[in-house]
Order: sequence, then structure tokens, then C-alpha cells
Amino acid sequence: MSGNTLGTLFCVTSFGESHGPAIGCVVDGCPPGLALAEADIQSDLDRRKPGTSRHVTQRREPDKVEILSGVFEGLTTGTPIAMLIRNVDQRTKDYSDIAGLFRPGHADYTYWRKYGVRDYRGGGRASARETAVRVAAGAVARKWLAEKFGIVIRGYLAQLGEIPVPFESWDSVAGSPFFAANTSLQPKLEAYMDDLRQAGDSIGARINVVASGVPPGWGEPVFDRLDADIAYAMMGINAVKGVEIGAGFESVCQRGSVHGDEMTPTGFLSNNAGGVLGGVSSGQDIVVSMAVKPASSIRTERRTINRDGEPVTVSTKGRHDPCVGIRAIPVAEAMLALVLIDHALRHRAQCGDVCK
Amino acid sequence: MSGNTLGTLFCVTSFGESHGPAIGCVVDGCPPGLALAEADIQSDLDRRKPGTSRHVTQRREPDKVEILSGVFEGLTTGTPIAMLIRNVDQRTKDYSDIAGLFRPGHADYTYWRKYGVRDYRGGGRASARETAVRVAAGAVARKWLAEKFGIVIRGYLAQLGEIPVPFESWDSVAGSPFFAANTSLQPKLEAYMDDLRQAGDSIGARINVVASGVPPGWGEPVFDRLDADIAYAMMGINAVKGVEIGAGFESVCQRGSVHGDEMTPTGFLSNNAGGVLGGVSSGQDIVVSMAVKPASSIRTERRTINRDGEPVTVSTKGRHDPCVGIRAIPVAEAMLALVLIDHALRHRAQCGDVCK
Amino acid sequence: MSGNTLGTLFCVTSFGESHGPAIGCVVDGCPPGLALAEADIQSDLDRRKPGTSRHVTQRREPDKVEILSGVFEGLTTGTPIAMLIRNVDQRTKDYSDIAGLFRPGHADYTYWRKYGVRDYRGGGRASARETAVRVAAGAVARKWLAEKFGIVIRGYLAQLGEIPVPFESWDSVAGSPFFAANTSLQPKLEAYMDDLRQAGDSIGARINVVASGVPPGWGEPVFDRLDADIAYAMMGINAVKGVEIGAGFESVCQRGSVHGDEMTPTGFLSNNAGGVLGGVSSGQDIVVSMAVKPASSIRTERRTINRDGEPVTVSTKGRHDPCVGIRAIPVAEAMLALVLIDHALRHRAQCGDVCK
Amino acid sequence: MSGNTLGTLFCVTSFGESHGPAIGCVVDGCPPGLALAEADIQSDLDRRKPGTSRHVTQRREPDKVEILSGVFEGLTTGTPIAMLIRNVDQRTKDYSDIAGLFRPGHADYTYWRKYGVRDYRGGGRASARETAVRVAAGAVARKWLAEKFGIVIRGYLAQLGEIPVPFESWDSVAGSPFFAANTSLQPKLEAYMDDLRQAGDSIGARINVVASGVPPGWGEPVFDRLDADIAYAMMGINAVKGVEIGAGFESVCQRGSVHGDEMTPTGFLSNNAGGVLGGVSSGQDIVVSMAVKPASSIRTERRTINRDGEPVTVSTKGRHDPCVGIRAIPVAEAMLALVLIDHALRHRAQCGDVCK
Repeated sequence: MSGNTLGTLFCVTSFGESHGPAIGCVVDGCPPGLALAEADIQSDLDRRKPGTSRHVTQRREPDKVEILSGVFEGLTTGTPIAMLIRNVDQRTKDYSDIAGLFRPGHADYTYWRKYGVRDYRGGGRASARETAVRVAAGAVARKWLAEKFGIVIRGYLAQLGEIPVPFESWDSVAGSPFFAANTSLQPKLEAYMDDLRQAGDSIGARINVVASGVPPGWGEPVFDRLDADIAYAMMGINAVKGVEIGAGFESVCQRGSVHGDEMTPTGFLSNNAGGVLGGVSSGQDIVVSMAVKPASSIRTERRTINRDGEPVTVSTKGRHDPCVGIRAIPVAEAMLALVLIDHALRHRAQCGDVCK
Repeated sequence: MSGNTLGTLFCVTSFGESHGPAIGCVVDGCPPGLALAEADIQSDLDRRKPGTSRHVTQRREPDKVEILSGVFEGLTTGTPIAMLIRNVDQRTKDYSDIAGLFRPGHADYTYWRKYGVRDYRGGGRASARETAVRVAAGAVARKWLAEKFGIVIRGYLAQLGEIPVPFESWDSVAGSPFFAANTSLQPKLEAYMDDLRQAGDSIGARINVVASGVPPGWGEPVFDRLDADIAYAMMGINAVKGVEIGAGFESVCQRGSVHGDEMTPTGFLSNNAGGVLGGVSSGQDIVVSMAVKPASSIRTERRTINRDGEPVTVSTKGRHDPCVGIRAIPVAEAMLALVLIDHALRHRAQCGDVCK
Repeated sequence: MSGNTLGTLFCVTSFGESHGPAIGCVVDGCPPGLALAEADIQSDLDRRKPGTSRHVTQRREPDKVEILSGVFEGLTTGTPIAMLIRNVDQRTKDYSDIAGLFRPGHADYTYWRKYGVRDYRGGGRASARETAVRVAAGAVARKWLAEKFGIVIRGYLAQLGEIPVPFESWDSVAGSPFFAANTSLQPKLEAYMDDLRQAGDSIGARINVVASGVPPGWGEPVFDRLDADIAYAMMGINAVKGVEIGAGFESVCQRGSVHGDEMTPTGFLSNNAGGVLGGVSSGQDIVVSMAVKPASSIRTERRTINRDGEPVTVSTKGRHDPCVGIRAIPVAEAMLALVLIDHALRHRAQCGDVCK
Repeated sequence: MSGNTLGTLFCVTSFGESHGPAIGCVVDGCPPGLALAEADIQSDLDRRKPGTSRHVTQRREPDKVEILSGVFEGLTTGTPIAMLIRNVDQRTKDYSDIAGLFRPGHADYTYWRKYGVRDYRGGGRASARETAVRVAAGAVARKWLAEKFGIVIRGYLAQLGEIPVPFESWDSVAGSPFFAANTSLQPKLEAYMDDLRQAGDSIGARINVVASGVPPGWGEPVFDRLDADIAYAMMGINAVKGVEIGAGFESVCQRGSVHGDEMTPTGFLSNNAGGVLGGVSSGQDIVVSMAVKPASSIRTERRTINRDGEPVTVSTKGRHDPCVGIRAIPVAEAMLALVLIDHALRHRAQCGDVCK
């Protein structure tokens, strides 16, 4: 119940600092008998890993995962699956300048106030590097969801700073350095990012994630609603500042006669609900959108204080993502997968006898 | 760990249906020695209760709370505080028409798919009536937070449908049937609501909640971030479809040099973070905004299906809120109080020896 | 996660003091569609209730249960089942003498040290009266276990003070005021208890509980072993000081060649394991034995201290059980039922696809 | 909440199989600022490790621990502490004979029924090897308990098969290959073990663990009693079949006037309670005793069945402990430390303001 474990039945415990020896996680509660190999996980990790284009951090981490337990003769055994990723490209000296001060918008200050000590190297535990292990755990979840229910979970960049990136096709996402579901905007996005990098600044993004094939009935009515758990999972990704389900903030201006998705014998006529009604999945696509703030590690000089409370300025060196929203997309997919498998297991625990 | 308990250390277990004999909750983990009487809880319940103006449901529920345990000689004893609210004004016959069909946008359908049975009377467990017990539990939490830390938690209506309701003063909220922090707009809001009621339709709203006086250091870095738990709590309120912390979706278009709140020896220069950095409170105001969808129980006729999958139409009678966002405000305050007290206790458990 | 909730998926939250207005519980996570009425619960409560013979406390509590939620048209709906039992025969004045001092062997002292306040009336929360709600919750669990798996859970008195009470037949238990599975010893047990009562003293007991029909595969290997959770549940009953599974402490002197239960195509040849191997049920009877200490509320005068740390003597008036072990038997059955249903649900959550 | 995580606030997640690449754990919730190095953990691991005398398994595992996270510049940071122990001396071929059958008294059968697959190499997850990680986690807990409260946790062998081993002095324990608090019996114990080994059989044991210096007030009254959580933790150690607190099963024959520990201004006059009253620590020593069954991996031939349900015989080769109770002693100490630190944190969370 400490803050580094996610899930009630499919539990992921995350550990590791950006510049420590390793990061990793333990997945407990995975159904037995699932075919699983390191390659299944590596493919998702490769989508998130740094250094894949000039638009993301240039830290060179192979993010090679080692499965330490829970898999025997190619199958999960139902016991904990520990996964380990060694850190190999730390440049800790980049951080000595910020050991004694707090970057604006960063966890530097709050960690120090909370714990009284802080591993400042690369942001320590607050580094987005930690999210690699969520992707690893999510890969296990999504494999089971796909094989058992045919569920497909996909994300894309919906907006980069001021530039909306309209959804055109899922086919475009894999080839885009921005996870854009849109090919025509690529030159514009690249120019935008090049300018930003040159300016030593960073930018926010909106990212969307969709799960298709989720059966009706997953979720809980009151507190542990499916959408509440999704909001928790997404707001728990570094830098996320807002989460919407379905119509989201648009529903503020909608009338009930417009918002409520009408039903016919062949299905729903719209999806303002985003696939969740009363906290329980309806069988429609689960549609989630989130705001990712601009990274706080930027070259631009800013005012702050040091540990002694004195005014100083800070400009962050090191290798950082100018738009953390981009690489957050596979992370958001993983988080959605983790919430869904947990509710899949919870649902069959309580309602395994219901046939409707 | 079933879905009707909130919190890790300050735990609220909710029970009860809209048209059953009673609703209530059990608060477990409350610090001992807190002066507590039913009157402390009643005042918050009265802010949420139905029938206070013509703009909310006309169901007449006194929402009178009875404390059944956990208080002795006027002080909490540290044992569970059970609180009971009897239902007194059910009109179950209003619901016989919808027993066999599903209102668009309502949990009717998903409950039926999940459980195979459904207490259709007044929405059963999915009724907003359940939120009264959250307000009761929240009243305990906010009393402790106020007495121990001087924390103040307040909410207001920020937008009603298309009408933004700018914040002017907290003083206006108590006298407004809409919880508006603004007096000049009241005639406009009243006219809007009257039209809506006449039209037999409902409307969404944006509501904001602010907690002042929260010390730095509350929250957890990775999954159980303070903002993640707030998002979970708020998305767990009936009809909420979106949650923002601080700049929220505005941060999509912000540059890092703008978003990151600069610090000086006398404090932060802005609050885009909304009081949370890296999942941990910074000492600034915790600022939360959320979208509440329009209610799905409306008189306007809509297409749907019945239990046999046949096409039918539905028009809901009964006494319903045309804008559930209004009465959701005290609920959102309560949920924020519950998240904060839980993290207050978690923080001193782990970091009780830290002095920074 | 506070201490008054039991279970991971089938969760029971208990509340109430001995001399407060009521005791009760909320059962969350019950499978939907179970036929349930108050009469189903009352029959178990009646087995535990006070005043059924001269050998137990003479407090007159009808222990009449009211179901407040979670049941609709005779079936559980999958939402929380709240159950309420009003206290009707408090005699609080009996306790004014002990308000300022601590009975030897009683929670008086530790509650006061923990919480700084204490509801001394009738032992408050530490009263065995609280266990009535466990019986109520257990009745729901055992009904589901019986209907779904044919599981039968039964307990009996195995030893009263120095008198072993050999098991002869389950048929004897219902007619015995001592829950003895043995009729011939009844006069001896009655004489023993009459002497004890006259002496103003109390006595310990050994009680056994057996669950038949539990399928193989329930439980978890490492921490949440089925036997570990049973030990937790039983040691969590007031006055229990020891718990054994299967051969228990006899296994200290056993050789491996004797202890290990051999298997044949028609089943196991012995049951030293008590139905649990490696934390997981084997399909044999689950066999649990426990030691219940003598009650600490006795007329015999004893040395103690008061709140000011001064030496005083204490002799407890009021109506108390001379052997709390007797009425603990239905409680132990209930606790076993609660552990089993929780693991039944957990097992099908993770291993619902396994067919072995 | 899956079965491989222990604790509510100080959480230990265990992973790893006996013959997989590694075992390890993640400790989440450790207070920050604790001085911690691998050497602090290694000394406890060395007490449990195999091969230290001819009376335990001859598997040669250095049990060298690597801290992967959560410690920075010699201090815990409050973030998860991951610890890894590589397996280096597997002899998997020893187990090929038992891949298709079930050892009497072993988890072989129940794992297979639960999961449908089973890592049979060295018992996989059911191996006592897993307990090394509990010792590692416990070392962190006991260091904090010692430094913050002066708590000392010690265990000893109280009985080996039929031979009682009376407690004489804690000083004897460290030098005894049996963790005996008694030097005079050593030749007898050695002869007993030599005979047993020659006979190809195994034997049970009784072990005691004592925690001194625990302040009053730790624990919870109803379900999560300190003694209930201790019973859960101890019964969760491989091969434990019975747990007692204080007088334990002796209390069956005790009268209340004998059992209840009288109090005087200078303290309690006895400790039948074993340091726990009403689920809450009294300030006296916490005294726990447990029965450890004989190991099921023995050379003696026994009847069993294979996966096809056919009758076969089995005789286990490999390197096994003839008395698993011996090496269980440091494990039991670790488990007690883990329960105590968890309740220390829980107590100050809820009752941090109480001064009594």
C-alpha cells in the first residue's frame, strides 16, 4: 500500500532511480499459462526508449530487459514476474550543478521537503526513466488482454503545443517520431521541435489513448470506477496535468439530450461516455485524453532558490526531452493496459457467475 | 479492496441505495481525540441536500445523520465511526417504467451487464444520493485538517453550460443557490436554469475546488501521487468526465519557461502546478477543476433498448437535478478533504522524523 | 487498510461498541445473485447470542439484524450489504467502577495507551459483542460457499479447561450448550461450569473448526497463504492465543516420513497438513484448532493500577461469560468462511482459466 | 494485494524461484534518512544461509545481496529499496525425477492444481530459499526499530523433535549451529541430527522469537491486531503449522485469575499475554512460539501419485535441510521485525498526537 505499487490483483511494484544501478518492477498476480518472453516486452520498451530520433533525449539506453522470475519453459507460472533494466548511460556529473537548488516546476523541491534527502542525479526517482518499467509491466498486461479478449490499446499525439494533430489513421503512428496518427503534418512538427530545441525550451502536448474490445461490465460503481482508476493511472504519469474520459470538458457545454449516448439494437449511436457509464465499461471504446505539461529541465535561465532559501538562477544541462508528451504515449498505453487487466480480474472474481 | 472503500489509512466505506432503507458509511482510521458531534457533519450535509432551491431536485430528504459508533463523550476514540442516514422520501413508483430499459448515458445498462441484477429504484447505488455519505465522511476529515493544520477547502461553480462564472469572492458562495463565487451573474444563471427545466433537459458544469494551507511534502512520488489520488477521487464522483490540476489542459500550449513556477525567497511566483510537483504537495494552494456532465435522467424523449434488446424510447419522470454539477460542489470538497487527510497520515507514518 | 476491514475481495468492515447505539458491518464484494434474507443471517446469530444457557453471559440481546442495503427482491446485487444490530440491553452503570483502572489481561490498558481515550462501557470496542457482526458477515459467506461448492464449515469444543472433549459426532453439537460433539460428557461439563461460576473465575478452552468440500487450489504461495490468512483471522478473535493447522504443534515431534501425507489414486492417506500444502488448499478438510484464554472480566479480586499509576484492586461486576471459548465457536466458523470466500474469489480472479 | 507483498505501510514484495536466475525483494515505505549499507543486510543473511554446518543443506549459496535502489550516499531516500540475490549453485538435474510427481507433504501437488504449471526445479517458489529475501527486508526493519526505539528481536530453537532445548542464555545462540540458547545440549543435538541424516529422514522443531523494547500502543483492536498480524506472518513461513502468543495453548487450562497478568506501579507481574492485550502491545516482551513441521524432501521412499494420477513411489535426492526449523529462526526474527515496523508506522499515522 505504499505508493510504488499499482493495482489490486494485477500488482506492479516499481523501483529504481535514473542514475542508480538499475530500474525494474515486480508484476504479481499475472494469470498462469501466458506465453511470455523477453522479446514480447522489448518491443514495447523500444517504442519508449530514448535516442530514437533527434526530437527526444539523446541519452543512450538500450533498455534491455531481463526477466528474473515467474516464467518457466516459456509460460508464466502465476508467481511474481521480476523484470530488471540496468542503467548504462548515466552522466551524473551533468547534475552536480543542481544538487543544491530546485528547478522550477520540478519535484526537486517537494522531494526535499518530504524526505529531507534527495537523489538529485538525473531526477532520481522523479525521472521519466522510471516509466520504462511501467511499459515493461504493461506489455505483460496487454498481451493477456489481447490473447484473452482481443483488446487493442493504442495511443497517439493529438496536439503538440499549439498545433492540433488530427487523427487520420492508426497506420501512421508507428512510422512517426511523434506517434502522430497523421503523416501530412510531420514536416511542420519537425520544424516546430527543431525551433524549440534551439530555443532551449520545452512544450506541452495532448495525447489520446484508446482501448478497443473491452467487454461490458468491467469496473466498480462507487470509488474504484474504471474511469476513476484510469484517471489515477494517467495522472500518475510524470507531467500529466489533466485527464478526460470521452467528451471530457466538452460535456460542460452539452445538454443531457446531446450527451447521453442513445442505444439501438445494433449498438450505441455516439460515444460521449468514452466507454464508461457509472464507472463500468459499456463495451464501447475506452477513450482517454490527457494534458502533458512541458518538461521542467530546460536550458532557459530561470529564477529559483537554493537549499538555504537564497535566490539563485538555474539553467539545466544534461540530455532532456523537449516534449515529454511524445514518449509518454507508450507509457499511457501501458497504464491503460494495467488498469484494464486489474479490472478484468476483479470482475471475474466477483461476477464470474453472471451471464448477461 | 472492493470498490466501495476509499483511502489507505483514513478509510471510508460507503453503502446504501437511493430507495433502500438507508445510506451510510464507516470511517475507519480517524485520529483519536477529535471533538466531533452530529452537528459538525450536519452543516456540510445541509449544503448538499436536495430541495434547497427550485434549481435542484425537489425530493425532500432531511439527510439527518446519526453517529452509531466511534465517538465517546464528544471525542473520537480512534475506532470506526459509523454514520447512518435514513431515506425518507422515496417515490419508487416513479421508476417502474424504467425497470426494464436503459436510460442513455446512465449506469442502468452497465450495472445490468456487470451484475445481472439491478436495483432500478431511483438509480439504486448509482444515484447521486450516495454522495451524501461522502460529504458526511468528508466533514470529519476537514474538521481534523482545519484544527491540526488550518487547512481550508472550498469549491465553487466555474461554468454553467456555456456561461463562465468568473471567481469574484468566496463570500458570495454561501448565499448562492449555484455555489457561484459571483453575485452579479445570479439572475442570468437563474433564467438559464428555468429555461432548462422547462425544456425538460439537463446541462453540464465546470466546478473548481481549492485547498489552502496544505503543508509541503504530502503525497507519494510514483503511483499514489497526491494529484493522482485527487484525480481518482474526483473522477469517482458521479458524472465527472474530466479533471485538471493547476494549469491542466492549458499546459498543452505552454512552454516550459512559462509553465514552471519560479521560486523566490518569499515564495512561488505563479501556480501552474496547482500545488503539486512530482506528486507531492509544494505548500501552494491545491487547485482542482473538473467537468461534470449533464444528468441522464431527463424528460426529453430518447432512443434506447430494453432488456430484450428491442428498440424503445424513454423519458424519465421523477425528481431530478437539471444540473448535477451544482450539488457536486460540496461532494468535491469532501473528496478533496478525504484525499488530503489520508496523505497527511501516510506522510507522518513514513516521514514523521523528517524536519525540513 | 485500517484495522477494521477484513479481506481483499470479500471485505467486511466492522463497527460499533458494546454499549453504543448499535454494532454492524458492511460486506463489500459479495457475488451478485445470491438469495439472501435476514433469516439466513439470524440463524447463525442466534447460535452466538448471549443468554442461551446459564453457562454464558446473561445479557439479554436479541441480536436482531437489519439488512440496510445490497439486497433487492431477495437477491444480492453485488453492492455493499450493510447489516445493523441495535444494542438494547446495556447496563452501563455496571462499568463506572472500572472507568479509571485497568483489568488484568484486558485491553483496557493498551487502548488507553494507544488512543489516549477509551470507551470503558462494557469494554467498548474490545467487547466480544463485536464478534456478532462477524457472524452476520460469515453467514453470507457460508451461504455462497455452500451453494456454489457444497462447502460445510463446522466447529466444536475440543477441551474445556483440563477436560478434553473428544469428538464423537457432529450431530451432538447443535443440542449442546457447549457446542460439544459429545453427549456423554455434558453432565461433567455442566458441573465444571457451575463450580467455576460460583468461584467467580473463568477458564480457557480449545476449539476446533473444520471446513469440508474446499476444492484444491485456493490460497497463495508466499505471504497470503491460506493457512496464514486463517491464522490471522483466528488470532484476530478476542482471547485467542494460539492457532494450529492440521497436526499443529504435534508436528514438532514428527518425522518427515510420518508427517507427509501420502497420496494414492483414491486420495490422501492422512491429513497432517490440515488441508493446506504450501499455503494452498489440497482438497482435504481444512482443520484448524485454537486456544481461547480465560476471560479477564472476573469477580475474583486482583491487583492492578489506575490511570494515575497507583496500585488498586479490581473485581469485575457485570454479566460475563465464564468461558468465552464457548461462544467463540460460531465466530471461528464465521471467520473461516470469510477467509475461504475471499480466497475463492482471489483464486478465480487469477486462475479462472486453469483446468486441472 | 496479490499474495507476494507483506505489510500495509512498510511493504515487502518478494520474487524469485529457487533455481531461477535470482531471488529478491522490493521494500517500499522505509523511512528516509536511515543509514543503510549492504553489510547491514549481509550479516543477517549469513545467519540464514545454507552450508554453515553439516546439519543444514549443503547447497553453496553465498547469498550476496546487491542494493539496486532507494539508498543514496549511505542513507535511505524514502523510495523503494530493491535487493537482489543471484542464485549461483543450482543443480537442476537433481529435480528431473520429481517433475512429473508430487512429494507427500509438499506444495508440488497444490501448485499444480492451482496454476496448471509448476516450476519443479528445487521447489521453485515454494522453496525455503525464498525466505532469504525476507531476512534481507527484515534487516532493514530491525535496524530502524533498533535505532529509533531500541527494540531487540531474537529467536532460538526451543525444541528439536522430542528434545526440549531449555532457554539458558541469549549468549549461546550465536555460537550454536542450531540457534540453541543452551550449550550443554549441543552434543545431544548433534548426535540426533547425525542419526536423522543417516536415516534419510527429517524432523520438526519448535522455535521461539522475542521482541524486547516494543512500546505500548502498537497494533489495531479488531482484525489487524498485532498478534493476528504476527500469526499471519509466522504461519506464512514455509513449514510452520502452529503459532502461539504468550501462554498460547497453555491458556486452555488456565483460570482467569491465573492467566490475567496483574499490574503494579512498577510493571506487570507476569507475561501470559505475550506482550499483546486486545491486539495492542502492552510494553512487555512480545513472545511468539511456533511449530515447524519436518521437511517433505526426504530420501525415505514414500507412496504418491504422478500427474496422470497413477500410483508411484518417491524418494527425494538433492541437498535438503533435515530440520528446516533451524534455519527458520532468522526468518522468524525477520518476519517479526517486519510486522513491528509496519505497526510502528501505522500507529504514528493515526495516533501521532497522543501522549500517554
